[in-house]
Amino acid sequence: MMGAVPSSQLLERCVCGDTGAVARLISRAEADAEEARPILAEIYRRAGNAHLVGITGAPGSGKSTLVEQLVQRLRATGVKVGVVAIDPSSPYSGGALLADRIRMPALADDPGVFIRSMATRGVIGGMARGALDAADILDVAGYGIVIIETVGVGQDEVEIAKASHTTVVVSPPGLGDELQALKAGLLEVADIHVVSKCDRADSRRTRIDLERMLSRVAPQAARSGWVVPLIGTSALTGEGVEQLAEAILGHRAATGESAEGEARALRVAAFRLEKTAELLLLERFSRAKLGTTAELAKRLAARQGDPYSLAAELVQRLLP
Amino acid sequence: MMGAVPSSQLLERCVCGDTGAVARLISRAEADAEEARPILAEIYRRAGNAHLVGITGAPGSGKSTLVEQLVQRLRATGVKVGVVAIDPSSPYSGGALLADRIRMPALADDPGVFIRSMATRGVIGGMARGALDAADILDVAGYGIVIIETVGVGQDEVEIAKASHTTVVVSPPGLGDELQALKAGLLEVADIHVVSKCDRADSRRTRIDLERMLSRVAPQAARSGWVVPLIGTSALTGEGVEQLAEAILGHRAATGESAEGEARALRVAAFRLEKTAELLLLERFSRAKLGTTAELAKRLAARQGDPYSLAAELVQRLLP
Repeated sequence: MMGAVPSSQLLERCVCGDTGAVARLISRAEADAEEARPILAEIYRRAGNAHLVGITGAPGSGKSTLVEQLVQRLRATGVKVGVVAIDPSSPYSGGALLADRIRMPALADDPGVFIRSMATRGVIGGMARGALDAADILDVAGYGIVIIETVGVGQDEVEIAKASHTTVVVSPPGLGDELQALKAGLLEVADIHVVSKCDRADSRRTRIDLERMLSRVAPQAARSGWVVPLIGTSALTGEGVEQLAEAILGHRAATGESAEGEARALRVAAFRLEKTAELLLLERFSRAKLGTTAELAKRLAARQGDPYSLAAELVQRLLP
Repeated sequence: MMGAVPSSQLLERCVCGDTGAVARLISRAEADAEEARPILAEIYRRAGNAHLVGITGAPGSGKSTLVEQLVQRLRATGVKVGVVAIDPSSPYSGGALLADRIRMPALADDPGVFIRSMATRGVIGGMARGALDAADILDVAGYGIVIIETVGVGQDEVEIAKASHTTVVVSPPGLGDELQALKAGLLEVADIHVVSKCDRADSRRTRIDLERMLSRVAPQAARSGWVVPLIGTSALTGEGVEQLAEAILGHRAATGESAEGEARALRVAAFRLEKTAELLLLERFSRAKLGTTAELAKRLAARQGDPYSLAAELVQRLLP
């Protein structure tokens, strides 16, 4: 690492809003090296001012375009906006700044906007760990709103809600069975629902379906008096984007100083704690098991046992 | 579960090649219920005859079409072929048989072919756990070759190699920087390289790049005397598909009874053991931590500590 700028120095520059330092710190977080942890710990303790907005939706829902328009609208209120995009199917994953510029060209020249794509390497249970560290880094760099954009598949869609202060779920028109699947958990966790591509004729049907489904479940957000809005947006006409920005700021204001806001912050912290503990646990296990698996693997290969019973034996031996 | 067929009965039907029973058992495995584990354990002990072929490639590499053509070619040799597709961006994920028929229509009417898409729910480190259980189920049902198809992102691409007897890596033309990223690990683990869409003019460039890169690294497979082939395929013309089928069968024959084959089977078992142990470990942790996180989460929310140190404290308390 000869010649590398110390992370502590990057942090000081980052606090002053140096986007180059932000980018380099995020790269260190993304590399997920244990060496980076002390500085990430320091950054966490200094953070806590940003409002985290999770935006999730099925592949093809037009999330990225919507986020781009949303960021422009939020910027108009003066707030600095950071975006962390976690998308395994994004061809731009890997974190290059250039790629991010390609991804959202309309925002490339605004210094009050910082956008970063992250691969899903180093995941535990779906959501990239580095994304939450990246959100902290943007937080201390003065980005008042940090959007975490995930493709709504697997566990990401549920985890994003646990990690965010405001959760936005985007559904494209014409989902049918896919929309049904939303019932599984996504429907309840959204603070704001969006039906995208509402210039399309079939978006009306999707809105009606979604409204009917929403009336049958009790959204978690509604318990605290927040009325979960259902907003139609169109990347083509720009319709609904301002309404979405207002809904996000409205939700921030509504939960900010309230008991619900405090409960939410606690849930976010509990989630972060558990995910980090899982990481440390697996790391500890990984170090402990070196050498001890060989005999059990031999028995498994010979089918003198099955994965579940032999794995239970392995865990028991290491952590009796 | 009133009226549900007992899993043991499904297993007996499955061994007789009943595809309905195969589908239902896979659904039980995919649901990842602890109740299903005894039967999955039994299935594992009975399995061990199928040759597992991992096929991975970037989104847009044309994997699915290639797999469809490959399956037809392999079928022509008389072997029953199972396919487990793990693709987070697939709109057909979720496991419905109908959806699978839509996905690979040319294969819908062949009873010697069983195709199943799986979501990436319940992942640990990327690859769906249920996929390996599904491969066992197809194994005991007499499918001599089981293809596990994953989109090459995140950890899947490396894990697929650890879980398979033969690993095929598919690269589309014109990747450029993406191809560079292959160097990170994928290049070395492939037993067979494919450049897809070789009807396109830029595929020649990709082949040359890949050949140059291959000459610089030492593929793991080459250590045992296997010459890693680089095959150009075209879904349009069908070119290269037969060659790919032959390469897979050739690799199976070359490693079958050899010391390398035995070492590979042991690596596959060790991987399976570790992944299952991680699952059990996290489950045990998840049960233990109930109630104990609240106080630490409160401190984390108040930023009286950071995720890493408080998580270490949590792990220490539960597993001193």
